[in-house]
Order: sequence, then C-alpha cells, then structure tokens
Amino acid sequence: MENELIRYFRQRVPAHRLVELGLGDDAAVLRLGEARYVLTVDLLSDHVDFELAEVDPRRVGRKLLAVNLSDIAAMAARPLAAVIALLLPRAGGLQLAKSLYEGLLPLAEEYDLAIAGGDTNSWDGPLAASVTILGQTTERGPLTRSGARPGDQILVTGSFGGSILGKHLDFQPRVREALWLHQHYQLHAGIDCSDGLALDLARLAEESGCGAAIDLAAVPVAEDAYRLAKQLADGSTPLQHALADGEDFELILAVPPQEASRILADQPLPVPIHRIGQFIEMPGLWEQEPQGKLRPLAPTGWVHRL
Amino acid sequence: MENELIRYFRQRVPAHRLVELGLGDDAAVLRLGEARYVLTVDLLSDHVDFELAEVDPRRVGRKLLAVNLSDIAAMAARPLAAVIALLLPRAGGLQLAKSLYEGLLPLAEEYDLAIAGGDTNSWDGPLAASVTILGQTTERGPLTRSGARPGDQILVTGSFGGSILGKHLDFQPRVREALWLHQHYQLHAGIDCSDGLALDLARLAEESGCGAAIDLAAVPVAEDAYRLAKQLADGSTPLQHALADGEDFELILAVPPQEASRILADQPLPVPIHRIGQFIEMPGLWEQEPQGKLRPLAPTGWVHRL
Repeated sequence: MENELIRYFRQRVPAHRLVELGLGDDAAVLRLGEARYVLTVDLLSDHVDFELAEVDPRRVGRKLLAVNLSDIAAMAARPLAAVIALLLPRAGGLQLAKSLYEGLLPLAEEYDLAIAGGDTNSWDGPLAASVTILGQTTERGPLTRSGARPGDQILVTGSFGGSILGKHLDFQPRVREALWLHQHYQLHAGIDCSDGLALDLARLAEESGCGAAIDLAAVPVAEDAYRLAKQLADGSTPLQHALADGEDFELILAVPPQEASRILADQPLPVPIHRIGQFIEMPGLWEQEPQGKLRPLAPTGWVHRL
Repeated sequence: MENELIRYFRQRVPAHRLVELGLGDDAAVLRLGEARYVLTVDLLSDHVDFELAEVDPRRVGRKLLAVNLSDIAAMAARPLAAVIALLLPRAGGLQLAKSLYEGLLPLAEEYDLAIAGGDTNSWDGPLAASVTILGQTTERGPLTRSGARPGDQILVTGSFGGSILGKHLDFQPRVREALWLHQHYQLHAGIDCSDGLALDLARLAEESGCGAAIDLAAVPVAEDAYRLAKQLADGSTPLQHALADGEDFELILAVPPQEASRILADQPLPVPIHRIGQFIEMPGLWEQEPQGKLRPLAPTGWVHRL
C-alpha cells in the first residue's frame, strides 16, 4: 500500500540540512543560500494517466507539464525550470516525442518556465514520462499541507468531478491563482486536488493534525460530473464524482475565517472560489449536517495500489 | 533517430534567461541569483538498463542514482538534492520500491546528497524509474562538453569495456575525482562515458567544434573487456569492447598539454588517469597511427534508436 511506502520513506530516508520539507508534501522545499526552492517530480504513463490511442499526443504532452505545475501551484511557488525524461515506444517514438513537446512548449511559455534539459530513451513498453520542475518560493514562503488549524475555512477553486471527460488533460494549473492568493491573503495550508477532493482534503487535514468537515451541499459540482453520472448510469451521483474522481487540479486551501470571508467577498480570481466546510479538532473526514451534527465521510479518491 | 530529436529540440525549445546551458550537455546549467546550478534527469527501465530478474534490486537502485551522479560529475559540480520517481510493476511493487531505496540510500549518504522527494506509481508494465539531481557548480564554473581545443590532451579515468559483467551496476561515479581535478588543474572540457568511449569522445569533440585522435595502444582496457571478449568468442577484441561497450561511467577530459603532463605525473586520484590521444582541428574521430598518420575511427557505442 502507498501509505506503507510513505511510512517506510519517513523512517528510512534521513533528514538533510538542505531539505526544509521533504517527502509528504506536493513538492520538496530546499534551502539554498538565502533562497528557498521547491522541487517536484511526476512520472506519468500510458493506460494509467492517459490513453495515448484515444487522444491527441499534444494534449498528453501538455498534461505531463501541467500536472507538475499544479504541484508547484499547491506550494504557491513560482516555476523556474523543468527537465523532461521520455521513455518512448519504439514504433513512432520520434514523432510522438515531437508531438508531446508541441503540446507542452506553449504551456511552458505561458508560465515563463524554462525547458532546461531532458533524457530520451525508447523501449518495448508503452510511453512513460517524468517531468521535474524546480520552482522558487515567494517572500511569503511555501504554502504547505501542514498549517491548517481548527476553525480554518476550507476554500476551493473551480469545480469538481467528471474530469475524465476532458479536464484531466486540459485543466489550467492554478499557479497564478495560488501566487495571487498567497500574496494578498493569509493562507494557512494548501494542496492541489489530484487524487480526489475528499482524499486530498483528508490528506491535508491529516498533515495538519486536525480533521475536516465538509458541507456537502456547498461542494461545487462540475457539469462534467453530471454528464459522467448520466453516462455511467451506475447509480453514482454527481456529488460522489465531485468528491472522488480526482484530477481536477484545483486548489484546496485552509484559510482563517476572516481572511476566508474577504476572499469570498472579493472573488479576486478568474475562477470562482467556494467555501465547502471547515477544519475541526477531531481528526478524520466528516460530513457537516445542517443541524450541526457530524457524520463520518469516506476519503474517496484514487489510491495508488502497490 | 536520436540526432534528429536533438536537432528538433535545439530548433524548437526556446532559450530562457535562466538557462546558461541547455539541452546537449550532461546537465543543464541554471543561473539563479548569484549562484549557478546544474539539473539533470535520467529515466532507466527494466530490460534496457538492467535485468531486474537477474540482479539484486538494491544494485539497480544504486545504479539509478549513480548514473545521475555521473552526469553531475561530468559537469564537475557538487550534488545537492535528488527527487526520485518510480513506476513499479504491480506484483511485488512495494518490496521492490524498498529494495531500490536500500540500494540507493547509502550512495546518497556517501555523496551527502539529500533525497528530497519523489513520486511512486504502479502499472502493468516493467519497472521504470527517473532520478533528477540538482547540483551546484563550484567557483570555477561548470565543466562543459564544448571547451576542448585542438592540442588539448585526451585524459581518461579508470579503464573501459566489459561493464556488462558488473561495472555497469557497481561503478563509482567520479564526482569527487572531477571536483578535485577541476579545482587543482585547468580543464577545458569533460563528459562521462555512458554510451561508449569512442561515441562519447566523438560527442565531446563535436560539441567543441574540433576532432579527436586516439592512440589505440594507449586505451586502458578493463580486465572485464578481456573476459567478455573471451566469453562471447565472436571475434570481437577487448579493445573493441573498450571503445564501444559504454556504461563505464569514467571521465573523458580535454586538458591543455602542460596541465595534462602535470596530472599524469601527479596521478592525484585513487583511480589511474591515462592519456589516450589528443584533440585536433579536423572534425571527426580518428585513430592516431604511430607514424603520425590519421585513420577514420567509427564512433562506436550505444545509440538510442527512435
């Protein structure tokens, strides 16, 4: 199980004077000289993170980079440079590599991200690709998963669910949004929603040593969650998709109450911000019922099984 | 072909003010504030870079990191921090991940390298793993592939050939050796031998806009090159293996004549340094015959076919 591996890492990987924050957040935080940098890697593969046979490879290339930019956004850091490693199927590998780059280069340019280097290999297996991004924190420091406190409000950007219908490829990483909010408001903690709203929120709460109570009626459910529930016709509801689907790559933030009110009133981003609940003392993930009662809520989402 | 992809990258990937040296060297050189950093990634996979069924996975884990450290060595930089992404086969993935880490952690500690983070996934394919290392150049700047000049001597550490018999897994990346030489002597250019002595030397010469002439009798042939030639009994000679096998992960250096003489007299490293020829004006790779004549030499080695 993934959790066992994380426990192993935490026990076995030694602390290091350069590492201010290591395994367990969206990116590592390194202190180099006077500055603090973030470093994050993602390794995506065909049939797991996309179906190359079914989509334009340029969209896949874009996703390779966007997923990583979303980790940088979760730390409210500025992206600086990326290195990209491709493991290409032998048949058509050269054209595939070019198409992936055609998809990711415009996104790199949009975020002023340097594509600094890479490694390209071919093999008999399907496409796998890793992107590593080096970023720099702002003068306000990194936004981590561990700063939420009971009473903080849970704010989210955008809407959730049904990303498999397209958003998982074409989403906009919330880099500028996170930087703006981090600069203009006091944020306590943040994470990007990659594996599912419920699961990623539970992770943020756990890292912060508290719990989270969601007002389910307040969860912004994406239109694609409705479409998907209808298409599947398997009894799943749009709300369940919003809680569990993942790959929305929206921000989940812990914000002190007064700041949360300001943000909600200001709505300073090109994407809506919603309040979906609050952090509480009691560990775990909960549904906040209208009468104030709490009911346990499953941290549904995409769990990597090992 | 790999060369076509490199041409594509050079045409298509835009320059960036942070990137002093991009695609085409062993690592990218980034200028961040007052300091210069190097960033490099390698993506290794089962059946291409190792045979997981035939070796202790700890040796594979060690190799994942060592290959990358060798790129840092080629730049004569100091390794700082690494992030590691694993794509694990589903069956036994958890135990495999732990074994890989058991193999790489001692090497990280030996080089004071922080393991700062990672990404772990599983899939139905074989093991693939990417390691990214961030390093820092010394006050003497990075050692690049492009500084060799006609008249420079070709110096190499260690010996070459037959690495498939074991050295390709258990080699010592020449990080300390490169730092020492770069600090105490004037070096013009360097590369690590990953794909083959002849091929990597030809690459260095090409990046420097000159040629290289090898005195074949002076090439230090590893004992394993003799063993391998004997085992294969296919007519290949130990010298051919030394020129073409690759994965020796030794340093190939361009050094001005007087400095080269000093290094050869001093022999300041725990590994022998040999002179195997010199850089010349005429582009290409050449065999320097005893009478002074030049004969074309094939840049043999491991070419990634795309």
